[in-house]
Amino acid sequence: MNANEVIANRAAEILGHKRGEKFVHPNDHVNRSQSSNDTFPTVMHIAAAVEINSRFIPSLQQLHDSLHSKSVEFKDIIKIGRTHTQDATPLTLGQEFSGYTTQVKYGIERINCTLPRMYQLAQGGTAVGTGLNTKKGFDVKIAAAVAEETNLPFVTAENKFEALAAHDAFVESSGAVNTISASLMKIANDIRLLGSGPRCGLGELILPENEPGSSIMPGKVNPTQCEALTMVCAQVMGNHVGVTVGGANGHFELNVYKPMIAAGLLRSLRLLGDASVSFEKNCVRGIQANHKRISQLLHESLMLVTSLNPKIGYDNAAAVAKKAHKEGTTLKKAALDLGVLTEEEFHELVVPEKMIGPSDR
Amino acid sequence: MNANEVIANRAAEILGHKRGEKFVHPNDHVNRSQSSNDTFPTVMHIAAAVEINSRFIPSLQQLHDSLHSKSVEFKDIIKIGRTHTQDATPLTLGQEFSGYTTQVKYGIERINCTLPRMYQLAQGGTAVGTGLNTKKGFDVKIAAAVAEETNLPFVTAENKFEALAAHDAFVESSGAVNTISASLMKIANDIRLLGSGPRCGLGELILPENEPGSSIMPGKVNPTQCEALTMVCAQVMGNHVGVTVGGANGHFELNVYKPMIAAGLLRSLRLLGDASVSFEKNCVRGIQANHKRISQLLHESLMLVTSLNPKIGYDNAAAVAKKAHKEGTTLKKAALDLGVLTEEEFHELVVPEKMIGPSDR
Amino acid sequence: MNANEVIANRAAEILGHKRGEKFVHPNDHVNRSQSSNDTFPTVMHIAAAVEINSRFIPSLQQLHDSLHSKSVEFKDIIKIGRTHTQDATPLTLGQEFSGYTTQVKYGIERINCTLPRMYQLAQGGTAVGTGLNTKKGFDVKIAAAVAEETNLPFVTAENKFEALAAHDAFVESSGAVNTISASLMKIANDIRLLGSGPRCGLGELILPENEPGSSIMPGKVNPTQCEALTMVCAQVMGNHVGVTVGGANGHFELNVYKPMIAAGLLRSLRLLGDASVSFEKNCVRGIQANHKRISQLLHESLMLVTSLNPKIGYDNAAAVAKKAHKEGTTLKKAALDLGVLTEEEFHELVVPEKMIGPSDR
Amino acid sequence: MNANEVIANRAAEILGHKRGEKFVHPNDHVNRSQSSNDTFPTVMHIAAAVEINSRFIPSLQQLHDSLHSKSVEFKDIIKIGRTHTQDATPLTLGQEFSGYTTQVKYGIERINCTLPRMYQLAQGGTAVGTGLNTKKGFDVKIAAAVAEETNLPFVTAENKFEALAAHDAFVESSGAVNTISASLMKIANDIRLLGSGPRCGLGELILPENEPGSSIMPGKVNPTQCEALTMVCAQVMGNHVGVTVGGANGHFELNVYKPMIAAGLLRSLRLLGDASVSFEKNCVRGIQANHKRISQLLHESLMLVTSLNPKIGYDNAAAVAKKAHKEGTTLKKAALDLGVLTEEEFHELVVPEKMIGPSDR
Repeated sequence: MNANEVIANRAAEILGHKRGEKFVHPNDHVNRSQSSNDTFPTVMHIAAAVEINSRFIPSLQQLHDSLHSKSVEFKDIIKIGRTHTQDATPLTLGQEFSGYTTQVKYGIERINCTLPRMYQLAQGGTAVGTGLNTKKGFDVKIAAAVAEETNLPFVTAENKFEALAAHDAFVESSGAVNTISASLMKIANDIRLLGSGPRCGLGELILPENEPGSSIMPGKVNPTQCEALTMVCAQVMGNHVGVTVGGANGHFELNVYKPMIAAGLLRSLRLLGDASVSFEKNCVRGIQANHKRISQLLHESLMLVTSLNPKIGYDNAAAVAKKAHKEGTTLKKAALDLGVLTEEEFHELVVPEKMIGPSDR
Repeated sequence: MNANEVIANRAAEILGHKRGEKFVHPNDHVNRSQSSNDTFPTVMHIAAAVEINSRFIPSLQQLHDSLHSKSVEFKDIIKIGRTHTQDATPLTLGQEFSGYTTQVKYGIERINCTLPRMYQLAQGGTAVGTGLNTKKGFDVKIAAAVAEETNLPFVTAENKFEALAAHDAFVESSGAVNTISASLMKIANDIRLLGSGPRCGLGELILPENEPGSSIMPGKVNPTQCEALTMVCAQVMGNHVGVTVGGANGHFELNVYKPMIAAGLLRSLRLLGDASVSFEKNCVRGIQANHKRISQLLHESLMLVTSLNPKIGYDNAAAVAKKAHKEGTTLKKAALDLGVLTEEEFHELVVPEKMIGPSDR
Repeated sequence: MNANEVIANRAAEILGHKRGEKFVHPNDHVNRSQSSNDTFPTVMHIAAAVEINSRFIPSLQQLHDSLHSKSVEFKDIIKIGRTHTQDATPLTLGQEFSGYTTQVKYGIERINCTLPRMYQLAQGGTAVGTGLNTKKGFDVKIAAAVAEETNLPFVTAENKFEALAAHDAFVESSGAVNTISASLMKIANDIRLLGSGPRCGLGELILPENEPGSSIMPGKVNPTQCEALTMVCAQVMGNHVGVTVGGANGHFELNVYKPMIAAGLLRSLRLLGDASVSFEKNCVRGIQANHKRISQLLHESLMLVTSLNPKIGYDNAAAVAKKAHKEGTTLKKAALDLGVLTEEEFHELVVPEKMIGPSDR
Repeated sequence: MNANEVIANRAAEILGHKRGEKFVHPNDHVNRSQSSNDTFPTVMHIAAAVEINSRFIPSLQQLHDSLHSKSVEFKDIIKIGRTHTQDATPLTLGQEFSGYTTQVKYGIERINCTLPRMYQLAQGGTAVGTGLNTKKGFDVKIAAAVAEETNLPFVTAENKFEALAAHDAFVESSGAVNTISASLMKIANDIRLLGSGPRCGLGELILPENEPGSSIMPGKVNPTQCEALTMVCAQVMGNHVGVTVGGANGHFELNVYKPMIAAGLLRSLRLLGDASVSFEKNCVRGIQANHKRISQLLHESLMLVTSLNPKIGYDNAAAVAKKAHKEGTTLKKAALDLGVLTEEEFHELVVPEKMIGPSDR
């Protein structure tokens, strides 16, 4: 409310009067037709909607585009798949990145879906939502003015009582941001594990070296961007709980957790948006495939056996895989030893390139 | 996977063979063109989408309609508003309930917004999302079949890698349910506080008596429906965190938290849907306004003074309110004693009926 | 790690050499016998333990003492109790505040209980916990030095692998702080509801007026301290989830969520400690009982009927209460009308002063 | 409360009377000196304390002992360490498991630390905590009886107002369980990653095969016990939030979230305890070290270079590691090529067995 006093005094000075004279009155003039109960939530909605549109979504879009580029760049690199953290049938590295790309794409859809309710402004509800001390139409006009100024489709809230007493729109948007944090934690986790090594990890990805990795272990490079991003994700999940608790605990005509709720969502948006940009710029963009390592792992894998299923049946295929695993040998040797197919048949069937999509017929 | 064996054996029996003979093979025949990695998420999405459409949304709709009826029924009952839990300017009880109604209405919109991603089915992705061992078009056809059977717009997931490796759609829907739980906690909290008493609380609402309230305090009636609903809301908030943690922790081509994630969301949907119906049926529907109490509180209130602002200014109005508060007297007496207006002016200005909306001009 | 370079250069300058010459080497000299993998968690533990001891616990103690003073001050004020937000049997306002006092007292015990594990220092574990490049006994000595400097009972961690790879001690302490936030949310909620009014709420407490309450409603006083404290509690609950997620997601020999975990707990400690002090100073200390209102509510209550149970039985007592409720009359009138006891008996039995504790025999 | 009626009727029957006659009265006799407001929290505390002592702690102890056995069994197996998911200096597999063991050991300490407040019983507080309708000393006697029957040190709550109005003891214990879930998620995550493979993962551990792993990929073995345990951990983290929200939202003399709070903690205890036992029995107990793979990774690692720091300095050591990394060669070759030490010196210095602890002098 102090803003009223400051504005009143400054206006009075401009009009040639002194501060404190109340020539321009902080309540009767400056605060006319409004209450902090409607201006505060109005500003909360404007701040969040602007932040989402001008910074958060563009940040996610940048990350999305970069992941998509990598997906295209890596489209011909066939690698081993992993399910249950165990070796599985192959896919391309491009396909793997297409999953990440889709997660971020849907993340943008998710936050966009919440905006219609964020575009609703409380202004005009004054003290309890009734609009006491305003004139009819004031609410519509002010929303139109905000829409024009921000170039965003703000409208007056269809129900001012809801707009003051609840901040469900913030809990909802925070929920979308929480979902995005779950997506990004998965992506960053995968990338650091795929980039683990250099010699004793999975080693399929070579991550950019942004800084020396260790003050005691020479030559170490750490996935610091993945670490920064997953830390941010954890904090965003926490902020979401804070926003939810605040959103659930309003009383009667006003939810008074406004500052905490607003700070929680705005911080999450800024943290996750900025971390996405940094992750894109300092990590994703520079990721290289370790072709040699990828190829080596793929061809050592036992899971190529899956392509034998249609020919020799699951039971025989399992016997081949188990024999190779037990004896530390190749699938081919195990298959030939078991006599389930010929060498020609093996070479015809076990072709990773044929295992990365459905068959034509 | 045991289902494969059961189905295979039963099919073999029907065909005149014995169990265990593998005449029908659990893997080669029954499991053809599929993997638990794609069937499990497919069934998760079907289960959630059906539950949301057939039970959760109808439950919320029932609650919404009942709150709306109350809002209409109470449209002419003017009562004191409360902000910061303190007396504020008046509104109608109908307006207060319109806020609740709007919260539930938006809740339905919120969960609906998440459905496009829930309608995407993983089936056809098989082991790692590539669709190995299926034929082209299988995924589209099976989604169409599910759509036809369920009468819901299921489609094949545009990216099967995302559909196996992440459960963002569940985290997202759980986020919408979490928002709804925040809404319902607010509504149920208000109603129990407005119904508090019978003599030493706010007492504006008379809640239905569903059971004796106390084994030691005779004649006590408790807001048990509000209590049940808010307990459910707290549990739903908790389940949401569980679903989020599970959703964030997938590895590579598969998120293996599927059972926990599915159970978490399905439980939340069932709990919150059923609690909404019970709350509607056993509480909202039977809520009565305590006209006498509402009127008494309204007219004792000091906040009607707000209507004097335009006439005598905020400073004079504040002086009137403070004097009345300090002396334990009425606003009128304080105003007349201070000489800021006449009795006629007071009666013309301090009219609760004129304070429940914006002025015409 | 940059600190190594800064210290090395400054040391070299002091010794008469130039920056960048590495006369004093950042790794070989400054970083000798250490790794950020052990110094970072060491500093985390020192920071948290010092904050807890020097600021958090004293803040809670101040709040505790003030609540205890109020409990003593209010020991003879008999008021209506409320269970299920409904009128219940009486207690003294002092007893009510003794509950709050006990919650804070136990809160201090709770955080104290977590300290033994916070006092364990990782220093000496170096890169992975083995203590490579240190000498035997280094870990014990450095912990002793820290203990002496801080006057807190720090010891070397009995297992350095746990001390680097997990931050369970932070998750644990954060859990204690989370419990305290639940306590304080309850206390602050009660106080704002008991102080609600001035005319249309419960009105049993008069809270200090710290600022004007409304720019549109003259004379309004808001429970801003309760609001600030409950906002902080919600944020602390959120931070706790963030710390938990970070704590659960370490890999192998190092948990890399250290900065987020440390920031999360330290922020929670500072926020909740400072908010407790502010709440004590600007609210609790100045709370006054509204004797008139408390007495009025107590004597209007129907729940004094409980004292009739031993004499006339639960069924008769319930009949009295229900009759009085239905007819809007007093318990005495209802009891006499029903003929279940005489006026003398009523006056002998229904004595609030006799209802605030167990009987002697 | 229905229990009162059932007990009363059964007692009456035994005494030769009919049901419904109220010869034994449900309120006047059976409910004498009690209220569900004190019996319910009493039973909550008894249930939780018994569950913790009789099942949860023994389950953790079983897991602890098994991890400790493995730690001893693996004490001479030197392996590569991993920090930031990158190769680091070596440690023994026994040391790695000693970290897990310590986490579980501290977990038991953590839950034990919360018990003093769980052992406090509300019984004797009756309706609002005052003990109305009981006799002095009743509370102490009943706690003593419970203590005798359960063989656990139950005492009467020192403040009955806190014992009815708050469930901080449950939030606190749930916080300890939450910490344990963070510990177990870390341990299970490590084990599944260390057991990843068989050919394209880390492959250092061989996990027991409890079931066929895939219906489409023959020969696959999945870390299902790790998966079950981490799912339980995620749900426990969620339940903890539910318990916290319930614990924070009590009003006045009673917290009415009792059923949800009790169910939340009891479910978490049972889930996490049982999952720990299953994890121990079906996974930890049968874990084998893959000696060949561990040795191969260790000797390929570049991080053994750290042992050269004291001799040739960090800068030279880093140059050796980087050269070896770039050229895909061994540390020895790189070191000799750079001429920073002789072959004899290299063999003397680079000895993994000397890198797993501090030096003697």
